[in-house]
Amino acid sequence: MAVYTQLSAEQLGEIVGAYDVGELVSAKGIAEGVSNSNWLIETRRENGESTRFILTMYELRIELDDLPFFLGLLDHLAEHGAPVPRTIHDRNGAAYRTYDDKAVALIEFLPGVSVDHPTPAQAHSVGAALAEMHLAAASFDQSRTQSMGLGAWDWLINECGEQAMAAIDPELPDTVFGELSWLAGNWPGGLPSGVCHCDLFPDNVLMLGDEVSGMIDFYFAANDFFAYDLAVTHAAWCFEKGGAPFRPDIAEALLAGYQTRRTLTPAEADALPALARGACMRFISSRAYDWINTPADALVAKKDPRDFTRRLQFYRETAHAAFPL
Amino acid sequence: MAVYTQLSAEQLGEIVGAYDVGELVSAKGIAEGVSNSNWLIETRRENGESTRFILTMYELRIELDDLPFFLGLLDHLAEHGAPVPRTIHDRNGAAYRTYDDKAVALIEFLPGVSVDHPTPAQAHSVGAALAEMHLAAASFDQSRTQSMGLGAWDWLINECGEQAMAAIDPELPDTVFGELSWLAGNWPGGLPSGVCHCDLFPDNVLMLGDEVSGMIDFYFAANDFFAYDLAVTHAAWCFEKGGAPFRPDIAEALLAGYQTRRTLTPAEADALPALARGACMRFISSRAYDWINTPADALVAKKDPRDFTRRLQFYRETAHAAFPL
Repeated sequence: MAVYTQLSAEQLGEIVGAYDVGELVSAKGIAEGVSNSNWLIETRRENGESTRFILTMYELRIELDDLPFFLGLLDHLAEHGAPVPRTIHDRNGAAYRTYDDKAVALIEFLPGVSVDHPTPAQAHSVGAALAEMHLAAASFDQSRTQSMGLGAWDWLINECGEQAMAAIDPELPDTVFGELSWLAGNWPGGLPSGVCHCDLFPDNVLMLGDEVSGMIDFYFAANDFFAYDLAVTHAAWCFEKGGAPFRPDIAEALLAGYQTRRTLTPAEADALPALARGACMRFISSRAYDWINTPADALVAKKDPRDFTRRLQFYRETAHAAFPL
Repeated sequence: MAVYTQLSAEQLGEIVGAYDVGELVSAKGIAEGVSNSNWLIETRRENGESTRFILTMYELRIELDDLPFFLGLLDHLAEHGAPVPRTIHDRNGAAYRTYDDKAVALIEFLPGVSVDHPTPAQAHSVGAALAEMHLAAASFDQSRTQSMGLGAWDWLINECGEQAMAAIDPELPDTVFGELSWLAGNWPGGLPSGVCHCDLFPDNVLMLGDEVSGMIDFYFAANDFFAYDLAVTHAAWCFEKGGAPFRPDIAEALLAGYQTRRTLTPAEADALPALARGACMRFISSRAYDWINTPADALVAKKDPRDFTRRLQFYRETAHAAFPL
């Protein structure tokens, strides 16, 4: 949660003026996004019609190069019926603009709330929405290399160093080094792939009742195995807060929901336990790195890597039992 | 800016369920309020009608005792035509509820943006809205003792200590101790008084074009001289960011706007320079105290007391010239 940049109403009005959306009538900095600043804004046209948007200012340089991919993906998915917000283009047709040396984009506002304790019906709906996204992404003509794959986990863990990791949890170094070797020898190959969300936590899903009204925050989207994206979603949704206990009803509903839209191949089903172990390593490695490297006075709440060592332990023990297909 | 408490959608839904406002369909933590957490929420009734509200959770114990005053004041002012948001009452008629040992209130959402660099037309509108508030407050049957008056400034400054203040600015101790004695000997008495906002910075005013659409954040409201409230507003609006230079066009418009609704008595007009010096001391003392006592890792951005030593210096030098009546 953060608003890194303070923009005045006059500055926000100047940004909004580049879009054919009417006059700015409200703007609230919102506590969302870990590497960008966001405002929930409202504009009003002369005929009185008002519309809401999310205005995002990208704070990290790295995202700028990928913005045409991220924003183009939103447009493509929305056009193909997946529940994601559209990018609003400016009067010149550009998907993003630069303001004060930073990129800004105007994104459709979608209603819905992010649940903390999903019901099976909600998990079913999330599974279906994820599969819809995978199907819709098939015709998207851009791609983005996975920058948070096995090689990145390995790099992040080595950057952390044994001592700093042991300060988080004495067992952490053994766990992660052992797991990285196991994954290197057991990572599947040749599964159906395409653009994946790769970070579909409950935070990034908006719900209206039991239905998904929006999937948001595609800033980790990359080409990968669809089944890996499903495994990430499984790891993100099927456990109580803190990473335990496992919720089998949610797992069953998530997988069933996914398969209402897209049937897993036998090879995908077979690979799910290994992919879920990889999903845990993905979040253990980035969280451990951030835990060790985030200054104490940062505005961002640090996330505990141990939430995912618990899940990893569970996936190691249960293997296919965690995936009731 | 802060969201101190994390509430899940389920918890927010539970809170909102106590009000006759429909179902929660959106909730965004917003970066407003320095001692409370705020969400911009949207609810939808069965007939499809949707409404927005600000949900506030009060984080500091001290405000709880004063809540009936603050929330009752909003209702009273709104009923009497002043541009302030109403308090929404729950199904049992209560203006606030407690949730998880903290008080929460549901407040009407008003459109509008807070300007950084006001135009004279906007300052005129602010003056008029402040006077409307003073007139409307006359029939309010509750009162609240000013807890941020001369005695409090003195206490805060003494708590800061000379050495810590000198670390902010070598001249600060002499300035404030000298000013406190001057104010003690020159503070006016017997001026028209009633409930005042006492903190009407641009942040706390919502504007639609040149018109005030809302005055918000009444959590420093207290009984005091109306002319002191006008002096606070003068000190808050009539200078460029950082406390200099002075903007005479804004001062003239603010005072003229105020007098379209309420004419200042000769004694009030005469007292304005001293009251403005007091207004500066009010913000110097609280900002110096917070500057010295806020932990480095706090989520709240510290405000520089020197913005108001510059204004104080200006008021000392110009006296009545700063108040073109």
